[in-house]
Amino acid sequence: MYTTETQIRIHYALTDQMGVVYHGHYAQFYEIGRAEAIRNLGYSYKDIEAMGIIMPVVDIHSRFLRPAKYDDLITVKTTLRELPVHHKIVFHSEIYNEEGSLLNVGDVTLYFMEAPQMKRCEMPSALKDKLAGYFSSAE
Amino acid sequence: MYTTETQIRIHYALTDQMGVVYHGHYAQFYEIGRAEAIRNLGYSYKDIEAMGIIMPVVDIHSRFLRPAKYDDLITVKTTLRELPVHHKIVFHSEIYNEEGSLLNVGDVTLYFMEAPQMKRCEMPSALKDKLAGYFSSAE
Amino acid sequence: MYTTETQIRIHYALTDQMGVVYHGHYAQFYEIGRAEAIRNLGYSYKDIEAMGIIMPVVDIHSRFLRPAKYDDLITVKTTLRELPVHHKIVFHSEIYNEEGSLLNVGDVTLYFMEAPQMKRCEMPSALKDKLAGYFSSAE
Amino acid sequence: MYTTETQIRIHYALTDQMGVVYHGHYAQFYEIGRAEAIRNLGYSYKDIEAMGIIMPVVDIHSRFLRPAKYDDLITVKTTLRELPVHHKIVFHSEIYNEEGSLLNVGDVTLYFMEAPQMKRCEMPSALKDKLAGYFSSAE
Repeated sequence: MYTTETQIRIHYALTDQMGVVYHGHYAQFYEIGRAEAIRNLGYSYKDIEAMGIIMPVVDIHSRFLRPAKYDDLITVKTTLRELPVHHKIVFHSEIYNEEGSLLNVGDVTLYFMEAPQMKRCEMPSALKDKLAGYFSSAE
Repeated sequence: MYTTETQIRIHYALTDQMGVVYHGHYAQFYEIGRAEAIRNLGYSYKDIEAMGIIMPVVDIHSRFLRPAKYDDLITVKTTLRELPVHHKIVFHSEIYNEEGSLLNVGDVTLYFMEAPQMKRCEMPSALKDKLAGYFSSAE
Repeated sequence: MYTTETQIRIHYALTDQMGVVYHGHYAQFYEIGRAEAIRNLGYSYKDIEAMGIIMPVVDIHSRFLRPAKYDDLITVKTTLRELPVHHKIVFHSEIYNEEGSLLNVGDVTLYFMEAPQMKRCEMPSALKDKLAGYFSSAE
Repeated sequence: MYTTETQIRIHYALTDQMGVVYHGHYAQFYEIGRAEAIRNLGYSYKDIEAMGIIMPVVDIHSRFLRPAKYDDLITVKTTLRELPVHHKIVFHSEIYNEEGSLLNVGDVTLYFMEAPQMKRCEMPSALKDKLAGYFSSAE
């Protein structure tokens, strides 16, 4: 299992007239968490694109438990529960507020694709090698 | 079954550097489709809020099949497959481009809640009565 | 002078917790108005990009007079007061609500640029010819 | 003069298909810079709203010099050049990339207003006192 955490301060643009963060913005929080999870492996998502690989999102499932509010400093906890198999990778995100309450849970599935041809491919091995260390053979 | 359709023109702000609509914006397309589905029953979502009822989103599941692109005129087809039971309502959305290709499928679950106390409630009967006509007893 | 009008329905994602449209979203309304003004000349902005020309925004000035609100059907009135000179074009936008109250005024300046080299250029002549008819020699 | 700096990492949602940050998003960067400038005085904007005062934006002027790009870590330098007079406050923002190039300049004017009546008022004195120290009598 591989887990990282990143924090985001909620600004006004993210709120709606219910006085909470608009539900549609959580996909951005997952994205930010995912980017930092990748960066923590020694490569940025920008580096991956420079390798000619893009990672389109193919599936998102979000559950909204409690609202995030203006000026909250939320924590996005991003977890890879399994090493990516073939062209597919699933990031599990949990979002907490400063009191430690779980606000939201999201599962985002992406594909690795060679960019110009849009052909499915494997995770770049440089990245996979870094990641493998977090997954023991017993898992 | 109750189905409505609404169209949205993709503007630049909705695109990202992959040259397609950013995945996080589809939640807005579902919202727009939902609002027009409700309006078509003779009440706006604004009217529902004026009745003291809000409808927070509690679950979204999106599947991304093909990308929407800049200047596409997409069609959001919004369907209620069942009459809402208790405090829960599920909108099913399908998004098509001008060629009729299915781009995206989304299921959004919302709750009816009395606003100040945030207490779960039923769909306002004025709305439910309008909706009932679309669901025959045989269904 | 060349003027077109387009309408936009305010959805929830555009509101903030002040209960009004977030100020940062007006740039999108100007963009939508601008795209329709161009389309009305017989070319889309997408066509212009296909000609190898992009139009980056270099200056925006917005004045906020009255707030737009959820579910408002606003009208964006987009005006070119002068034929573009050299590489520069200025769109003037006025945004009205359904009561005809002026909510917002914006001036957006863009450049015409040849895309790969990012070199300033003139408005495509196909477009300029269409536009010239709206500007009498006496103006 | 009172100046603070804050950093923002550009995520994918902020880019557009020109491969740069969409111009309409800079208003959010000014907002984030402004919020941190206020927080640095010992009060958050949330605290100000809790005092019954809101600060609607009445004017924005943005100049776009160079584009911000995906994954850039931009610095927003927010400056109050003058102590607010009456109900009006002007924040000057400069946005730099990691190479120290100036990307964007923005001036945002806001009003102080008592919230329920929407009546113009002065800056809360608790905040004004903190701020006064940064402006010598000689200025």
